[in-house]
Amino acid sequence: MNLAPLPNIMIEQAVRAALLEDLGRAGDITSDAVIPAAAQARVAMVAREAGVAAGLDFCKAAFALVDPAIVFTPHLVDGGRLFPGDVLAEISGPARGILTGERVALNFLGHLSGIASATRGIADAIAHTHAKISCTRKTTPGLRFAEKYAVRAGGGANHRFGLDDAILIKDNHIAIAGGVGAAIEAARATIGHLVKIEVEVDTLEQLDEALRHKPDAVLLDNMTPDMLCEAVARIGGRAIAEASGRINAATAPVIAETGVDLISAGWLTHSAKVLDIGLDFAG
Amino acid sequence: MNLAPLPNIMIEQAVRAALLEDLGRAGDITSDAVIPAAAQARVAMVAREAGVAAGLDFCKAAFALVDPAIVFTPHLVDGGRLFPGDVLAEISGPARGILTGERVALNFLGHLSGIASATRGIADAIAHTHAKISCTRKTTPGLRFAEKYAVRAGGGANHRFGLDDAILIKDNHIAIAGGVGAAIEAARATIGHLVKIEVEVDTLEQLDEALRHKPDAVLLDNMTPDMLCEAVARIGGRAIAEASGRINAATAPVIAETGVDLISAGWLTHSAKVLDIGLDFAG
Amino acid sequence: MNLAPLPNIMIEQAVRAALLEDLGRAGDITSDAVIPAAAQARVAMVAREAGVAAGLDFCKAAFALVDPAIVFTPHLVDGGRLFPGDVLAEISGPARGILTGERVALNFLGHLSGIASATRGIADAIAHTHAKISCTRKTTPGLRFAEKYAVRAGGGANHRFGLDDAILIKDNHIAIAGGVGAAIEAARATIGHLVKIEVEVDTLEQLDEALRHKPDAVLLDNMTPDMLCEAVARIGGRAIAEASGRINAATAPVIAETGVDLISAGWLTHSAKVLDIGLDFAG
Amino acid sequence: MNLAPLPNIMIEQAVRAALLEDLGRAGDITSDAVIPAAAQARVAMVAREAGVAAGLDFCKAAFALVDPAIVFTPHLVDGGRLFPGDVLAEISGPARGILTGERVALNFLGHLSGIASATRGIADAIAHTHAKISCTRKTTPGLRFAEKYAVRAGGGANHRFGLDDAILIKDNHIAIAGGVGAAIEAARATIGHLVKIEVEVDTLEQLDEALRHKPDAVLLDNMTPDMLCEAVARIGGRAIAEASGRINAATAPVIAETGVDLISAGWLTHSAKVLDIGLDFAG
Amino acid sequence: MNLAPLPNIMIEQAVRAALLEDLGRAGDITSDAVIPAAAQARVAMVAREAGVAAGLDFCKAAFALVDPAIVFTPHLVDGGRLFPGDVLAEISGPARGILTGERVALNFLGHLSGIASATRGIADAIAHTHAKISCTRKTTPGLRFAEKYAVRAGGGANHRFGLDDAILIKDNHIAIAGGVGAAIEAARATIGHLVKIEVEVDTLEQLDEALRHKPDAVLLDNMTPDMLCEAVARIGGRAIAEASGRINAATAPVIAETGVDLISAGWLTHSAKVLDIGLDFAG
Amino acid sequence: MNLAPLPNIMIEQAVRAALLEDLGRAGDITSDAVIPAAAQARVAMVAREAGVAAGLDFCKAAFALVDPAIVFTPHLVDGGRLFPGDVLAEISGPARGILTGERVALNFLGHLSGIASATRGIADAIAHTHAKISCTRKTTPGLRFAEKYAVRAGGGANHRFGLDDAILIKDNHIAIAGGVGAAIEAARATIGHLVKIEVEVDTLEQLDEALRHKPDAVLLDNMTPDMLCEAVARIGGRAIAEASGRINAATAPVIAETGVDLISAGWLTHSAKVLDIGLDFAG
Repeated sequence: MNLAPLPNIMIEQAVRAALLEDLGRAGDITSDAVIPAAAQARVAMVAREAGVAAGLDFCKAAFALVDPAIVFTPHLVDGGRLFPGDVLAEISGPARGILTGERVALNFLGHLSGIASATRGIADAIAHTHAKISCTRKTTPGLRFAEKYAVRAGGGANHRFGLDDAILIKDNHIAIAGGVGAAIEAARATIGHLVKIEVEVDTLEQLDEALRHKPDAVLLDNMTPDMLCEAVARIGGRAIAEASGRINAATAPVIAETGVDLISAGWLTHSAKVLDIGLDFAG
Repeated sequence: MNLAPLPNIMIEQAVRAALLEDLGRAGDITSDAVIPAAAQARVAMVAREAGVAAGLDFCKAAFALVDPAIVFTPHLVDGGRLFPGDVLAEISGPARGILTGERVALNFLGHLSGIASATRGIADAIAHTHAKISCTRKTTPGLRFAEKYAVRAGGGANHRFGLDDAILIKDNHIAIAGGVGAAIEAARATIGHLVKIEVEVDTLEQLDEALRHKPDAVLLDNMTPDMLCEAVARIGGRAIAEASGRINAATAPVIAETGVDLISAGWLTHSAKVLDIGLDFAG
Repeated sequence: MNLAPLPNIMIEQAVRAALLEDLGRAGDITSDAVIPAAAQARVAMVAREAGVAAGLDFCKAAFALVDPAIVFTPHLVDGGRLFPGDVLAEISGPARGILTGERVALNFLGHLSGIASATRGIADAIAHTHAKISCTRKTTPGLRFAEKYAVRAGGGANHRFGLDDAILIKDNHIAIAGGVGAAIEAARATIGHLVKIEVEVDTLEQLDEALRHKPDAVLLDNMTPDMLCEAVARIGGRAIAEASGRINAATAPVIAETGVDLISAGWLTHSAKVLDIGLDFAG
Repeated sequence: MNLAPLPNIMIEQAVRAALLEDLGRAGDITSDAVIPAAAQARVAMVAREAGVAAGLDFCKAAFALVDPAIVFTPHLVDGGRLFPGDVLAEISGPARGILTGERVALNFLGHLSGIASATRGIADAIAHTHAKISCTRKTTPGLRFAEKYAVRAGGGANHRFGLDDAILIKDNHIAIAGGVGAAIEAARATIGHLVKIEVEVDTLEQLDEALRHKPDAVLLDNMTPDMLCEAVARIGGRAIAEASGRINAATAPVIAETGVDLISAGWLTHSAKVLDIGLDFAG
Repeated sequence: MNLAPLPNIMIEQAVRAALLEDLGRAGDITSDAVIPAAAQARVAMVAREAGVAAGLDFCKAAFALVDPAIVFTPHLVDGGRLFPGDVLAEISGPARGILTGERVALNFLGHLSGIASATRGIADAIAHTHAKISCTRKTTPGLRFAEKYAVRAGGGANHRFGLDDAILIKDNHIAIAGGVGAAIEAARATIGHLVKIEVEVDTLEQLDEALRHKPDAVLLDNMTPDMLCEAVARIGGRAIAEASGRINAATAPVIAETGVDLISAGWLTHSAKVLDIGLDFAG
Repeated sequence: MNLAPLPNIMIEQAVRAALLEDLGRAGDITSDAVIPAAAQARVAMVAREAGVAAGLDFCKAAFALVDPAIVFTPHLVDGGRLFPGDVLAEISGPARGILTGERVALNFLGHLSGIASATRGIADAIAHTHAKISCTRKTTPGLRFAEKYAVRAGGGANHRFGLDDAILIKDNHIAIAGGVGAAIEAARATIGHLVKIEVEVDTLEQLDEALRHKPDAVLLDNMTPDMLCEAVARIGGRAIAEASGRINAATAPVIAETGVDLISAGWLTHSAKVLDIGLDFAG
């Protein structure tokens, strides 16, 4: 696998904000009162269920920001598969700091690993096809960069990162612009040379019109497998074919087998369950 | 219902950050290219499934920040129940701005309504008992204030907002502090007079020890219904009884019927599915 | 004493802002012009009057942010008593940086030590009673977390940290809500299980009404010692009794001896005099 | 009087931060629970003691940010003198918002009016001389711009705003630079043409040396009135003469009568008592 | 022309920061002292030289943030051509605010109009070809979104907005990756379907190798017109051809006539001269 | 030379913002894909043209923030003269991080060195006079502190840093205030004792009026050399004489030889060309 880590200044900024949110105006009043300042602890982050890890650098940053004396030792890298009982990382040092940083660290790790695991589930289900699984812009406000990273950690591909890095013409754009072709040409007239154009089509007629205007990609929304097969045939490799709508572990293989290049699902980022990871004290 | 709205400056700050995240460095290049500046539109936010609304003020703020000329007319208030096809709000004005703000508005609305709906599901399931359903600190980094609000919108109660507004002594605290009683007394010695103390217990023996030290609340973690009944009896109203662990729509009534005051579930905020809400063009 | 330090990321954020405020757009033009880059210095922070130290970690952060080469060696911990001439800390390293950071460091240290010292003065005056001295929300905008910490350093207790972590029903709330009892019940109906309710009462009749609704605490505002004695008797341990109004070193013992649990004073945080601490060059 | 208001974007930024600090993660839970959403109120900000007003625009911003429906009507302008019972402003509108914004508004108003009042006290005491009273850089972290404004509102003058807008050579600079003259010349060699040079002197010999190097101002630190008279004579109008050290209402006239141009006192900003201003409900 | 305005929240954020930078800790002390609060003024922003306007919305935001009572009336839209003496906008209202906001407004307007004018100069010079002029990532830190907008206003195209929205493989990447082809394939293996790949080539041999790996675009760096002609021929429309290096008004036509699709120049954003625009008082 | 470095917290804040601007929401996708994580590199920052260095600490901060493992070794200090081929700094460490940070580092270095070089060009041209070259407030929004520093690095002097640190009465102020004298007196009546007053005059008559009111400096705007000579004579050392308008390498000596103390030019900061500095791989 070839997953590049996120730049640390992006991670640290998000983790710092999360810690300040949790510390509020008085800090961890429980640990401060109950745990002696000199107490040391050694804990392990342990997977309680199977999945894929994502977010270890966020955990490392959380503990380092709480107390630089805490030593964080990851046992695997993001993207690695987990089985129940697997240790993701060991953490040792001042007990107060470990307890203070625990929740923020686990909130990131569980959330991002949940996304990575859901993505990996679909990726595995379609591994026998050439299709990739992709996320959308339906992300949690403020966490897009992290959630998109988690998708990559799960073996998925990234769709647009925002409104500004690619053209995606949807049904409402088409309605107002006066048709698929008009919309594509309007887009092409203004964009930079490194910006791709994708257009959403709901029917084969729209697809044909779209193809006449040479988009880089077409989004085949909510089509049946039969329609998708026909669409792929009509596209004939002239554009990337993306299928969306009702993607899950059961439907994904069927859809992927139609020959589309990409299937995308918003729920990977907005509705994936947290991966259950706990902190076990080792001493 | 009596759900107080969040202060606008809290909402606006979160929405502004989400918009800037989505707009990136060039804004909505699709709508800018494809939608004439003068085009007007009227759209409706429509529920695609049943649930409970939460986040309408976030939507209002999103459209207002994109273009003050957009008129946002809510058809209900947060906490209101939704059925498929229900219109949550109508939005009219410049089409470009509506399309630009759509995704951020729906990301908030879907996420928060998902939490409210999940909470309402449990709340309804235990409505015949005196127990309340509560969230935890297992929230999405950066969105705790909003997710806790969504829990309230769904008829749930809020647990701690952070590490600083209540004492919650957990198993690891107890292990290091040298026992339940020692931990409670250590906490009591330092806290302010408006801070409550809750202690997690895993056994009835720990519960008995805890009760001797008069905590405000006890967290009965992962106990069977039988154990919970016994625990409630031993508590005898001297502390708030909270049950946690494996709460879902099926188990919640059983657990609530044991007589506990509160059942709490992290998944309400970290793993609730987005509520499916779409934007339909009306003209 | 058992004063937990504030998390470093809370301190650093405040100190960084203060340094940028002082450095402006050109930095310390005096030291830059007058002090050779290579000059080293050794200075001592010395108490010019008796009091209690608070804010040493803020000083440490200030010098570290100005120049990591500066070595800051505290001679005591926050909460420690000071006598004129006592050295709080020694600082050695590049002279420029020491002079640049001096004012910000002393502004924090003097302000917070002033609050700690004022608090300690009252705490000592009532040490023969079981009452504690507490602050209020009358704090300097932006510094609440630090000022509340200084109160703890002075042996005081903390009241609410904000509008959101406890219910405090005041006279104006009661007037609008239609009475003490109605207000308490309205509050109880909405709050989480870890939130306490305190209600302000001005008369014994209000107190009686309040007690019937079982608040966690009552704020006895501006009552005479005789009234306070009667109030404490009526409360009979069923609620925490807090006295406020006209608290100073002379009145505090009299009020504390009435048997109240807590006396609170806004001036501890908003009007305490800075503790006079200077920087003496040692070479 | 000719007091220019602070730019609104400076005020709003400080007030917004203070509101967010007070609202925390749940907002004003007391008012939200106890005050009906539709309740209206009319209140008056009333002086409980004599003094000088400062900070009315901060109050206006606080209420506007909490709820734009609140109408804030000032009865005087900053810098105006107050007597017990005087109404500074009337506020009417939604009761919840008024109660939510009250504390932040009063925290600014009391703090800044306290500084203005203390400044006015000294200014009046030296009104028969040509000397002005000035603040220092001993301000509360984060509030320098506001505290300096309050000094102006009280009829005082402003010293440096930071380390970067004027040269102030102090004893420690002189010690390291190798003398008063060397320090002044080093400063002059680097600064811009709109930057003034002030130098602190402790003795008349230092003063003579300083004057030979033509500083714009000299800071006569902790000198007796006799020494100040002599110093003023030696300066002979060639530099601004500033006296500092132990300035209060009793000593100020004596010191001002020595003929100095300016007397400066750090306590105006760091230790002035809050001016007691209350909020009275009028309906 | 079809230049979409930047979203207002992007503009306002930049302008607010610039105003706070200029206002410092005391605001506009000159205008506050010299201009009566009630004085009104009417001024015109007038071009002192020919060019293209860009940044009018930044000016509007600047004056609105300083004082909402100021009325800003643009006489043209961004992208419009200017001749000496042309009025870009009229501004009327409180004189103080106009003078306070003037410099920030003009700093944005001059800088962005300078970029737009430089871009238009090249765009006009190559208007007889099908090539476009494009900027690079050599922008002023913090102003990339604005400078890229100014390029669009001048009739130019935008290159990448950052490191994250397109692949641009440069000479150093190639050297480390082990060749043009290896680099392209490594990129293709990881990127999303809406990300384009451009590769820089310095020789025709590299170009041939690149073309075998089907990049979306090739950057022909520092080639002579003859080499460019040959390169364009070899590319044969299979990739976008971008030429860079030593582009100016004299060389641009020659380079554009080689048939390349795009010529790019860093100096448009990093070294364009400010367009001279002044503020004339009309009363 | 005696150029004090900027405080690191000022530099780091600007560099962090620039990096986040460039990294966007996915980081450096090219280097992440193309450069092996373990690859090391050694590069040199090399001057491609003659000039003066400024901004090396910004580069150091950029690489350190991207990857602390990168070693940055400067070969000279800011203010040092450069000739084509000169190495400004060597950088070694992880190749990915070096490539990721390169553009931000060079954007600062080129921009600031460009300003320093332009300033040095004028400074050298007037070195035979006693006049200094100064910048203005015509700076790039957000970079004033850095650009003013670059002017110092180039041997220039700094004018005001903002609206708040000196009085500069311009033609429009004079028009509204009712004359030069009235404006100066209005300013003098309100300012602090460390604030200087400069007044712009366009004619010798205005100059005479100004001098009667003893400003600290006069700005002689757009006067011919002959007028400047006469103005200098009339000033007779009673105020600093600043000349502005049409300053360039050719006119500067002539203007400086008139005896003015200062010549100022906005283009130094707003229109100086970037200094061409490249990154050469050494292995």
